[in-house]
Amino acid sequence: MTETVTLRGRLTALIEANYTQRFIIGLILLNALTLGLETSHTVMQAIGPVINSADVIILSIFTVEVLTKMFVYRLGFWRNPWNVFDFFVVGIALIPATGPFSVLRVLRLLRLVSLVPKLRFIVEALLRAIPGIISIIGLLLLIFYVFAIIATGLFRETHPEMFGSLGATMYSLFQVMTLEGWSEDVARPVMEEHPWAWAFFVPFILIATFTVLNLFIAIIVDAMQRMHDRAVEVEKQIIHDSVHEENKALHGELQALHEETTALQERLSRMQNLLEQRSREGR
Amino acid sequence: MTETVTLRGRLTALIEANYTQRFIIGLILLNALTLGLETSHTVMQAIGPVINSADVIILSIFTVEVLTKMFVYRLGFWRNPWNVFDFFVVGIALIPATGPFSVLRVLRLLRLVSLVPKLRFIVEALLRAIPGIISIIGLLLLIFYVFAIIATGLFRETHPEMFGSLGATMYSLFQVMTLEGWSEDVARPVMEEHPWAWAFFVPFILIATFTVLNLFIAIIVDAMQRMHDRAVEVEKQIIHDSVHEENKALHGELQALHEETTALQERLSRMQNLLEQRSREGR
Amino acid sequence: MTETVTLRGRLTALIEANYTQRFIIGLILLNALTLGLETSHTVMQAIGPVINSADVIILSIFTVEVLTKMFVYRLGFWRNPWNVFDFFVVGIALIPATGPFSVLRVLRLLRLVSLVPKLRFIVEALLRAIPGIISIIGLLLLIFYVFAIIATGLFRETHPEMFGSLGATMYSLFQVMTLEGWSEDVARPVMEEHPWAWAFFVPFILIATFTVLNLFIAIIVDAMQRMHDRAVEVEKQIIHDSVHEENKALHGELQALHEETTALQERLSRMQNLLEQRSREGR
Amino acid sequence: MTETVTLRGRLTALIEANYTQRFIIGLILLNALTLGLETSHTVMQAIGPVINSADVIILSIFTVEVLTKMFVYRLGFWRNPWNVFDFFVVGIALIPATGPFSVLRVLRLLRLVSLVPKLRFIVEALLRAIPGIISIIGLLLLIFYVFAIIATGLFRETHPEMFGSLGATMYSLFQVMTLEGWSEDVARPVMEEHPWAWAFFVPFILIATFTVLNLFIAIIVDAMQRMHDRAVEVEKQIIHDSVHEENKALHGELQALHEETTALQERLSRMQNLLEQRSREGR
Repeated sequence: MTETVTLRGRLTALIEANYTQRFIIGLILLNALTLGLETSHTVMQAIGPVINSADVIILSIFTVEVLTKMFVYRLGFWRNPWNVFDFFVVGIALIPATGPFSVLRVLRLLRLVSLVPKLRFIVEALLRAIPGIISIIGLLLLIFYVFAIIATGLFRETHPEMFGSLGATMYSLFQVMTLEGWSEDVARPVMEEHPWAWAFFVPFILIATFTVLNLFIAIIVDAMQRMHDRAVEVEKQIIHDSVHEENKALHGELQALHEETTALQERLSRMQNLLEQRSREGR
Repeated sequence: MTETVTLRGRLTALIEANYTQRFIIGLILLNALTLGLETSHTVMQAIGPVINSADVIILSIFTVEVLTKMFVYRLGFWRNPWNVFDFFVVGIALIPATGPFSVLRVLRLLRLVSLVPKLRFIVEALLRAIPGIISIIGLLLLIFYVFAIIATGLFRETHPEMFGSLGATMYSLFQVMTLEGWSEDVARPVMEEHPWAWAFFVPFILIATFTVLNLFIAIIVDAMQRMHDRAVEVEKQIIHDSVHEENKALHGELQALHEETTALQERLSRMQNLLEQRSREGR
Repeated sequence: MTETVTLRGRLTALIEANYTQRFIIGLILLNALTLGLETSHTVMQAIGPVINSADVIILSIFTVEVLTKMFVYRLGFWRNPWNVFDFFVVGIALIPATGPFSVLRVLRLLRLVSLVPKLRFIVEALLRAIPGIISIIGLLLLIFYVFAIIATGLFRETHPEMFGSLGATMYSLFQVMTLEGWSEDVARPVMEEHPWAWAFFVPFILIATFTVLNLFIAIIVDAMQRMHDRAVEVEKQIIHDSVHEENKALHGELQALHEETTALQERLSRMQNLLEQRSREGR
Repeated sequence: MTETVTLRGRLTALIEANYTQRFIIGLILLNALTLGLETSHTVMQAIGPVINSADVIILSIFTVEVLTKMFVYRLGFWRNPWNVFDFFVVGIALIPATGPFSVLRVLRLLRLVSLVPKLRFIVEALLRAIPGIISIIGLLLLIFYVFAIIATGLFRETHPEMFGSLGATMYSLFQVMTLEGWSEDVARPVMEEHPWAWAFFVPFILIATFTVLNLFIAIIVDAMQRMHDRAVEVEKQIIHDSVHEENKALHGELQALHEETTALQERLSRMQNLLEQRSREGR
């Protein structure tokens, strides 16, 4: 093709080549190692400059790769969500951040997901499960919000560290929902001031865990449903084939009967001619 | 229709209109915001009167809406459980409560469930799961009660704060069943006085979690069963269609054979006539 | 029947009557109430003698009931496991126990399970799930035992309170398996002495929870399997009916063809007779 | 056979005999007892030499057994993974270890798995589930690693005991993922220094548990899929049999029709002969 002789064509071939993909995956794994080593003071004191240089070089290659993709795919680049994902995780690493935000550089390791088909498939499957459970999540948030307003109103004065504001209460209720220390660290201290507080926490736990359980069941049933739908297609084919094959034999026999009947017709026709001829002769 | 020209007819049309429903949903979301802001002292000091007024106005509109529904549907109003639900959550907000009970006003946000069809569907599905598990819940309560009486009898004297009364014991056993601090905060302290207490707690945990697990499985199997039943209906149709379609071809061929046989009959009939005629002539 | 006029016949009719069953169920519920009230010092100081008398009366009725059953069913009594269960829970209550064992009297409330068919059905279903998971339980016990011997050998000297003996270790590992305080209360204290102890606890948690998870899955799959087997039976019937019904029409048409062919035979037979007769006449 | 008269043949027969298998299983159970008793100082002071001798004797028998198997199966020995497993767990016990590694001797009890078919079947089923979830495990490890680097960067300075190194952080995040003390012992202490730390822990918990949940669902769906595939085979047979049986009746009727038509042909043939004969006579 002439396309490959243009610069854009050559770059497309280069960027989509298997060895380029493998090279980038190798770079991400190397980067995972250097980012891991960066967390060690001992290692950084010994070979800090080497690791920092490796990090800069790898980031530069990622940047060139993403820019190349933007050049060769043009607007098509933005239509693939995984490209957008790559753009952002590489872009975040380029922002000269200091303090807490600098740790977000490590998000670029998540590019492994966009590059390894099996991981991409899993993440896409996980994301596909979300629309089916969006209503249950909505219900859970509503229950959470209502219980949070009630708990803030009831326990704000006596336990400000846990229920002092709507945000603090939502965090505490999330903790209760995970059942972590719900009794010893949350409910029992509250019950010292409000002895009837169990009537708030026990129903909250029952309602919240029952709803989360149904969220899980919805995902399981959804996965089963998809498995089942495929099975029904297979079965449909099996039934059709089975009935069709058996009936082919019946068709054959009916065809034979048909031919015999036609033969009868012909023979009778000849006999009738004979009779009519003789009838004419006899007259 | 003439119905819409009467006051009741007009109100029915108004109350069931899509824009009314959306307006009420919007009001609930606005109310969620004001009830959330009410929990903040800073916000209340700044714009407390505004928020209180908004709350009163929204509650008035809800009251008018529920009264209108009671007027237009008359006795039918009480036949829809969601109307009864609306009646109670709005009614609770109208009771001039002070102290802990005033927080129940926030329950009116749950009207979102009765107004948004998807949420209503989920809650109805959750409630539909209950009859199938009522026996397991009964069994669990029985196990709970028996273990609670045993634990109260055994540990009341040494650990009154956890097992001092039947109520305290049931709360502690509920905590043990959620596995929260069952060993560090409940069983180990008890075992300091009663070294054989593990022989109470370990079987209780095994029995209670096994029963709860089966409660979960009952819900999953029930959901699968319903999915399966629908699948069987579909399959029944597939089999019927498949067999029917194939057999239509057989019917066609049999019909053709039938017509040929009839033709044979007619031809023979004519031949017989000929023969009989000649037989009469020949005599 | 004459059987009912004998003493044994009359007693059988009495013991199996619906109202007797309901009366016993009522007595158990009443007994549940009295046993619950017995845990309260206040109530016992006020009406202790009344409650104790009620308890004695109810227990006497239960004893008479079980003895009557033993009389009327004779050896058959021991063949029904629920009767044996009744015998033991009533028998335990009759033993004049003091101290901890006296609380076992409360087990007689479990007779509710043997008397209410729905509860009995659930318990039987729970017990039916056990044979299918006995191998996994065996494997789990083996894993437990091996890890317990290892942990006792490793941590006995430094943490005798948790790992001082095989029994203490098995209790601690059960606690770890339920994930209750496994890190803060077990692993982190141990890691202060043995920094590599995470290499014991993390694999133990992964192996134990993976095995328990598969135990759950085995129960779910087993329940599904039973559901599926019933479904296959239903389907078999559907397919058979569907094919049968459709083929009945084909049979009808074939029958019609058969009759027509027979008619053809007869007509031809008469024609042949005619021809042969004329042939004889013509000679 | 002559094979059994050679030494190798006799040893094969001996080693594969049912009573040898049962004898070895008995020895393992006995060894489980002695290894358990070894953990008790009291028992060891009383009958230590007896137990140590039993241990040495049992280990010698295991060694002879494995060596015999290596002799009789030659290279085939290494092709069965369970033999390799036996070789290593017996080999480990032979290494004269002191200190922590000596406890690995107890691994030889796991030989029960390789000798009892039901346990071996379960372990093989557990291992078979792994390939299907290897991608999800990979994704989970990636998420873990990325969150661990972020947490080390963010919390290393303020909470060195939990997040001081990548290893310490991964342990703490594993603890958070099991939900053990995630709030009281990890997140709340961190939030005292970094009030926004909930924005790290809550998403980590949601992402990690959602991924683990999907790992569970993958195992369940996989088990169902295998069950379903078997069911489809059964169903295929049912449909085929049902259609075949029904059609056999149709074939029978068609055969009868065929015979009748043949009879018609013959009769007509004879009639035609008669007519033609008369036609010739009449001329």
